[in-house]
Amino acid sequence: MLSIALVHWPCLDKNGDVIATAITNLDLHDGARVCLTYGINTLYIVHPYQSQRDFAARIMDHWLTGFGGEYNPLRKRAFEVVRVIDDLAALRAQSAATVVATSARRIDGAISWAELRGLDAQGDVCLLFGTGWGLAPQALAQADAVVEPIAGRGDFNHLPVRAAMAIAIDRVLGGNRWDT
Amino acid sequence: MLSIALVHWPCLDKNGDVIATAITNLDLHDGARVCLTYGINTLYIVHPYQSQRDFAARIMDHWLTGFGGEYNPLRKRAFEVVRVIDDLAALRAQSAATVVATSARRIDGAISWAELRGLDAQGDVCLLFGTGWGLAPQALAQADAVVEPIAGRGDFNHLPVRAAMAIAIDRVLGGNRWDT
Repeated sequence: MLSIALVHWPCLDKNGDVIATAITNLDLHDGARVCLTYGINTLYIVHPYQSQRDFAARIMDHWLTGFGGEYNPLRKRAFEVVRVIDDLAALRAQSAATVVATSARRIDGAISWAELRGLDAQGDVCLLFGTGWGLAPQALAQADAVVEPIAGRGDFNHLPVRAAMAIAIDRVLGGNRWDT
Repeated sequence: MLSIALVHWPCLDKNGDVIATAITNLDLHDGARVCLTYGINTLYIVHPYQSQRDFAARIMDHWLTGFGGEYNPLRKRAFEVVRVIDDLAALRAQSAATVVATSARRIDGAISWAELRGLDAQGDVCLLFGTGWGLAPQALAQADAVVEPIAGRGDFNHLPVRAAMAIAIDRVLGGNRWDT
């Protein structure tokens, strides 16, 4: 069973410094909708600041119990997959899954997408995505494995985290991707 | 060669009525970054209203010639792929590509993703994506073919258009998707 964690700290900024990024409304919406489409029942939103976790809770509340859920019940269903947590230690405490980090940079010893599909077929896997300019080295070091970068074509490799989540999930779980 | 068109009219709203949707800043950013990552050199933004096309031009101008390009040259490069056009007739006038529509609903005679990869290998293909609740029937009717829906797992199939674009492009062009 696959789960997803969208990590806001420790991440890198464009200068390579370690920062906590802000939670964005759209990352929650897009992440939840993609997860539910692929039958993923947990999307962890990881942020160390209470004020940011409260912000995420307010957005979700609108859709889960407020007017949003009446206006668009499908969105309500999507948000039921979201869990807001403090840090990667809290993730480990809640889940026995093998933690696999993603990175746009090639990391020594990275596993292939086929190997990731194999891990997912064998047991629980939680796939980590960094915001900002990606997961900081200390986040990668906390993972059990790192999967190779999503390769496009050419030298530009700056996918939005929303796109990286969608593509990675489809690479692991896409139903009719392999049809001929 | 693959190109992408993000269509804002004719689209459906949640009640099934035909509408023109608003251009959103983030769709332009995410679409351009995904296209450039996969070596796609044209992302058409299709909108019939001059005011909306002007809005798109203002966003792009910030990144292509304004402060944005200085602050983040990578974003400037991404926006170089965007072309803002009026309608599907303008698309046909500018491009001899085979036009393939996407749809979250199953359409009779839809081609598979493998068949789409075959078309792309043989010649130019432009892949259409609807905003709002998807392309209206009259947009599907203008396409040369429709590709089958992106299947996840289960009955919830409400991908954000940003996610659908990313997944579809990776399904056609993803470099290391097939590696073992």
